[in-house]
Amino acid sequence: MGMPRKRITIEDVARAAGVHASTVSRALNPQRQALVTGAVAARVAAAARRLGYRPDPVAAGLRTRRSSTIGVLVPDIANPLFPPILRGIEAALGDAGYTAIIANTDNDPQRASDALERLAARRADGIILATASRRDSLLERCRKLGLPVVLVNRSIDGGSVSAVVTDDEAGAALAVRHLALLGHRAIGHVAGPRRLSTGAQRRRGFVAALRAIGAGTQPPPIAEAETYEIEAGARAAAALLATNPGITAIVAANDLLALGCYDEAKRLGLACPRDISITGFNDMPFADRFDPPLTTVRIPHRAMGAEAARLLLAEIENPRSPKRAIELQPELVVRGSTARPRAGPPPAR
Amino acid sequence: MGMPRKRITIEDVARAAGVHASTVSRALNPQRQALVTGAVAARVAAAARRLGYRPDPVAAGLRTRRSSTIGVLVPDIANPLFPPILRGIEAALGDAGYTAIIANTDNDPQRASDALERLAARRADGIILATASRRDSLLERCRKLGLPVVLVNRSIDGGSVSAVVTDDEAGAALAVRHLALLGHRAIGHVAGPRRLSTGAQRRRGFVAALRAIGAGTQPPPIAEAETYEIEAGARAAAALLATNPGITAIVAANDLLALGCYDEAKRLGLACPRDISITGFNDMPFADRFDPPLTTVRIPHRAMGAEAARLLLAEIENPRSPKRAIELQPELVVRGSTARPRAGPPPAR
Repeated sequence: MGMPRKRITIEDVARAAGVHASTVSRALNPQRQALVTGAVAARVAAAARRLGYRPDPVAAGLRTRRSSTIGVLVPDIANPLFPPILRGIEAALGDAGYTAIIANTDNDPQRASDALERLAARRADGIILATASRRDSLLERCRKLGLPVVLVNRSIDGGSVSAVVTDDEAGAALAVRHLALLGHRAIGHVAGPRRLSTGAQRRRGFVAALRAIGAGTQPPPIAEAETYEIEAGARAAAALLATNPGITAIVAANDLLALGCYDEAKRLGLACPRDISITGFNDMPFADRFDPPLTTVRIPHRAMGAEAARLLLAEIENPRSPKRAIELQPELVVRGSTARPRAGPPPAR
Repeated sequence: MGMPRKRITIEDVARAAGVHASTVSRALNPQRQALVTGAVAARVAAAARRLGYRPDPVAAGLRTRRSSTIGVLVPDIANPLFPPILRGIEAALGDAGYTAIIANTDNDPQRASDALERLAARRADGIILATASRRDSLLERCRKLGLPVVLVNRSIDGGSVSAVVTDDEAGAALAVRHLALLGHRAIGHVAGPRRLSTGAQRRRGFVAALRAIGAGTQPPPIAEAETYEIEAGARAAAALLATNPGITAIVAANDLLALGCYDEAKRLGLACPRDISITGFNDMPFADRFDPPLTTVRIPHRAMGAEAARLLLAEIENPRSPKRAIELQPELVVRGSTARPRAGPPPAR
């Protein structure tokens, strides 16, 4: 193979196939192919193949205002929760001829905003936000830019945007009921940030379930972590155990927070699960590998990603399609971090 | 805020500043600003600010063939090794006004090739490949496209491309010497794929170090995993232990392979580290959380990513800059998966 020759343009293909350039554009675009007849599509495809035509997506983006690119904003690329969600997104997008561009925001609203502006300026066709806070100014910006957006994992208050989330209240209830069946009554919660839907909903589910098993207290035993990171979980666990020394089990609002609870329990000389049971949320990869293996609430990562991608593609195709909120069901995965509470009084601290 | 008004163009700014449009383009581009005088740059910046000019990167890409976008090809987004490398890349790119676009190839050469074509067609300014095999056809393609490329973590045979890797031979030797100091002599290797530089170099380092401690055998006790995945590591460990039943320690070529060794040891009823010591490679996030915590060879993830990004930016600025191969030094991290070999004969299998 030598160096590439002069670029074959869409006009060259149109001339060879005896159709208008816009017809070539439609015939070669998987999302718009249905707009031309099968015979025309075949003729265009043959001409394109014969000439060695390779579409230029940047020029095509300028022409059609489309780039077949979806931006995915991820709050923390180091959280193993997100790769399986991304895999679901990529699989669904790939089927439709779209590519995911992944941008990591490191939980920084400014970086999220910058990433959005860059993606919009590059004519991304839509955005999947895994970063949403309950009142997220990015969504107003997407609306102004006319940029379709779908939320995944985290939702907003109100519901003016399509979203695919887990039933977080139900998930927290699964964890509480599991602990109650083991005999726990003094169950505390290391909550996620209340500005995020996952933090607020899992907390609500925890409080309701505790009441349902007849173990509710006023105030409920809850400490909120500032972020979904291990160290924040350890700090919240310390606060929770300091104000509620009788606790025999902790429901953590995600798996990284649960790891923080592991660390704090160890620091206090409490063995898990002998002295204290701990549950996580998400069933992120490697949760089964920890010491002890983590009992957790599994969210359907891949399915959430795939569903979010499909909703977004539908909105791109038809901007008037109604906004949808899809809530998938979690399930409990019982491993080694939960057990019956110790007989006798709780260990001295 | 109302809806955005008619778009301000580069020509509007040029007219207001009394310069040519190409001068505006240079003055507003951090990478090319040095080509105009400070006074002109200031005049253009003032006019742009006054008019509320926001550069259109897609149109700018068509004009200058630059998009300030770097494509990063990652072989497996689910391997926790890559997020810290990406963080290093993002930090160095962000400092220079560039954005990383991350594409996941799932170890599929076809997906890698597709991703490269899409990025090239979108006029990415350069590519960082974390996916390279020792003879990688993507590099020839990059050369043909005139696309600057830098390798990270994995290198190629020959050295016609800049690369930032770890001294993998030295890393494997660190693991062997650590085990030898604990008293191990019968040390086996679960190798990575030989088509990847990491697999080949770590294997070479293992063989040389085993010989250096006077424990070399012919052939050396090695089983090769087909991929860097947990299941492949378990299969290789099974083969290694079947043909070398006296082994008291395994040097695995990465942390996921080491987890596979954990699984196979457990299946055989061998406790780690009591019956068998196991070392990993990479010190990926969570390696300290496993049961037992993994003794491993730490590679400088972030520094590798940052260095690769800086090399690439230098090549973009000056395509004739010489190709560089940077080798960073690994270090041993001793945790709970290694111990003295059991006194007495190895346990029956």
